[in-house]
Amino acid sequence: MVERKNPSWKKYVRQVTPYTPGEQSDDADIIKLNTNENPYPPCKGVRDALKDFDYESLRKYPDPAIRELRAEIANYHNVGMENVFVGVGSDDVIAMCYMTFFNSAKAILFPDITYSFYDVWAEEFGVPYEKQPLTDDFRIVESDYYEENGGIIIPNPNAPTGIAEGKDFFRKIVAHNTDSIVIVDEAYVDFGAESVDSLIHSCDNLIVVRTLSKSRSLAGSRIGYALADEELIKAMHDVKYSFNSYTIDRITMKLGVEAIKDEAYFRENVEKIICTKNWTYNKLKDLGFEVFESSSNFLFAKPKGISAADLYKELKARKILVRFFDKPRINEYLRITIGTDDEMAKFIDVVSDILSK
Amino acid sequence: MVERKNPSWKKYVRQVTPYTPGEQSDDADIIKLNTNENPYPPCKGVRDALKDFDYESLRKYPDPAIRELRAEIANYHNVGMENVFVGVGSDDVIAMCYMTFFNSAKAILFPDITYSFYDVWAEEFGVPYEKQPLTDDFRIVESDYYEENGGIIIPNPNAPTGIAEGKDFFRKIVAHNTDSIVIVDEAYVDFGAESVDSLIHSCDNLIVVRTLSKSRSLAGSRIGYALADEELIKAMHDVKYSFNSYTIDRITMKLGVEAIKDEAYFRENVEKIICTKNWTYNKLKDLGFEVFESSSNFLFAKPKGISAADLYKELKARKILVRFFDKPRINEYLRITIGTDDEMAKFIDVVSDILSK
Repeated sequence: MVERKNPSWKKYVRQVTPYTPGEQSDDADIIKLNTNENPYPPCKGVRDALKDFDYESLRKYPDPAIRELRAEIANYHNVGMENVFVGVGSDDVIAMCYMTFFNSAKAILFPDITYSFYDVWAEEFGVPYEKQPLTDDFRIVESDYYEENGGIIIPNPNAPTGIAEGKDFFRKIVAHNTDSIVIVDEAYVDFGAESVDSLIHSCDNLIVVRTLSKSRSLAGSRIGYALADEELIKAMHDVKYSFNSYTIDRITMKLGVEAIKDEAYFRENVEKIICTKNWTYNKLKDLGFEVFESSSNFLFAKPKGISAADLYKELKARKILVRFFDKPRINEYLRITIGTDDEMAKFIDVVSDILSK
Repeated sequence: MVERKNPSWKKYVRQVTPYTPGEQSDDADIIKLNTNENPYPPCKGVRDALKDFDYESLRKYPDPAIRELRAEIANYHNVGMENVFVGVGSDDVIAMCYMTFFNSAKAILFPDITYSFYDVWAEEFGVPYEKQPLTDDFRIVESDYYEENGGIIIPNPNAPTGIAEGKDFFRKIVAHNTDSIVIVDEAYVDFGAESVDSLIHSCDNLIVVRTLSKSRSLAGSRIGYALADEELIKAMHDVKYSFNSYTIDRITMKLGVEAIKDEAYFRENVEKIICTKNWTYNKLKDLGFEVFESSSNFLFAKPKGISAADLYKELKARKILVRFFDKPRINEYLRITIGTDDEMAKFIDVVSDILSK
C-alpha cells in the first residue's frame, strides 16, 4: 500500500495512553502470583453446568437483561433484581459507571495509590480527576473526600496495598457527598474486609462494585456486577443498552449462577486463602520484609537487603511471577498474590535463597 | 429511604434514549423469526470444545490479546493477526470504532433506513450525524457519501432490507473518502453478498465488521470482529485496553476458533438457508407480497390485503414472531428471518390462513 502522509482521520483518533495488561501465561512451570487470581478452581456446580450445557442453544441470543444471574446475585445480597447491574468483569461495570455518571466539569476523586485503571478511564472519557494522597502508612484520609467533586471512586480493600477501611468510614464519605455518586470497588472484599452492600438500601448515591474473578475463581469467565439504588441501575442499563445489548453470553450466565449459589465452597475457598496469607505474612516478616496487614488475596511488601525491582527480576528468572509497579511511592514494594500452600512455601524458599546470596 | 428531590448528580447522568432489544424467548412452542438467528446449531467442533473444556482453567484470566482466535480469523481472511480486532459481538466492535474514530465535529453519514443502532451510538457518544435517504426502491445512493463527513458506516447487505451492493460500489465510496474512516458492516454478508474484506490491503481507511452470530450460529456466544489496516486496529486496541482489557472469556475464545475452522459445515449451513429463503420468497410472491431480493438471512416484505402491523399481531397470537418496525417509510413491511424448512412451511401456512379470513 502507498504510504499516505497525513490523512485527516488521524487527527480524530481518540488519544489514550495504552494500558498494558499484566503478564499472562498458561505455562504450567510458572508460579503465577502476579494477577490476583484464585489458586483454586471454581465450584463443582460450574463444572457440571458446563458439562450439561446444550451447545445447540448457542445459535440463539442470550437474555439481554441477564435475569437469571441478576436474580441469583440479588438473592445473595438481599436486594432486588432491579438493584443489580451485570457486566463483562468489574472493569466493564466501572467503565459503564464513568460513562453514565461522571459527566460534570468537576474533578472526580480517588487515591493517588490505587487500582491503576481509575485514571485510565478518566483519560479515556475525558473526565477531570484529582488524586488524593494516601498517608505515609498508605491509609486513605476520609476528609480528603469531603471537598466538592464530580464523583468518587475508592476500592475497599485498596489495591495494591490490601488495606481496608470499615463500614463507618464509607458511611461518612457517602453522607458527605449526597450530590455525588460514590463508587466503592469491592473486588477483594471477600478476603477479609467488611462490605458496604447493605448501605445501598439507605444511600441513593452509592454504587458497590463486585467481581466473580477473585473469590469465585472465575477470572476466565468475565463477570462483574454493581449494586445500587434502582434509579442508578436503570441509568446504567440505559447507557449499556445503547452501547451493546447482549454482553453476557449464554454459558457465562449459567456458570455465574452456579458460582454464586455454592456458598459453602466459596467460604471454604476464601478461608484457605486467608490461612495461607497469614502464613506467608509471618514468613515475610521473619525475612525482614515490611508487610502491610492485608484484607485481600495479596500482600504488599517491601523486601529487606534487595530492591523490589531486583527481587522481581530474580524471582522471574526462577519462574515465579509477582507484580512490581515502577511508580513513585510504591516502587520499593512488590504485590504478591496468595497461591496454594505449596506455591507459597516454594515462593518463601526461593526468596530466602535469593536473599542469602 | 427518604425520597430526595434533586440531588445534583442527576444533572450529570448521560441522557440516552434507551434501546429496547428485540423480544427474546426460549419457549419451544414459539417459531422465532424476529432476530435473524441461525436456525441450525453451531458446528460439531463447538460441541466438542465445550465438552473437552478444562473448567479448572477458568480461575485464570483469559488472553487479553485474544491471539488464538485472532490468528484463526486472520487465516480465514488471508490477512495478518495485526489486521484483526475481536469484540463482544459486532455491536461492541462498532461501539469501539465510534469511540476510536468518530471524534471530529463533522457529521458521520449512514442511510436513513438501516441498522437501528447507528444513531443510538451517535447519540450515546455525542457524535453528529446525517442520514442519507435511500431511493424509493430502498437502494443506497453512492454519491450521497461523497460530501464532507466525519466518517461513514453502511451495512452490506443493508438491514432491514436485505439489499446488497457490489464491491465496486464500496471501492468508490472508500476512494472518495480518503480523509474519513469508512465502516462496512458485513453482519449478513455470508448469505449472498460480496465481501470487501480484500480491500483492506489497499485501503488504509476501510474497516470491515463481521459477526459469528448469524452465519456461524453463535449469537449466544457474543463474538464480532473488525478487519482493517494495522494502524486502525492498533488504535482500536489502545481504546479497548483503556476500557476493558479482558473481554473475550476463555470458553468463548475456544468456541470461536472452532466455528471459524469448520468451513465445510459453515458453507452447507449457509446454502441450506439460501435455499429456504428462495422457497419462502416465491411463496410470499404467490401470496401477493411485495418482497425484495435479499442477500441476507431474512426477507423484507410488504403484505397484501392486511397491514404489516396487523399481520405482525396475528402471527404473534399464533406464536410466530417476526419483526415489525413502527417507523416512517418501513411501517408497511415485515422483516422475516429465515428458519428451517419446517418453520417456513408453517409460517406460509399460517400467513395463508390469516389472509383467507
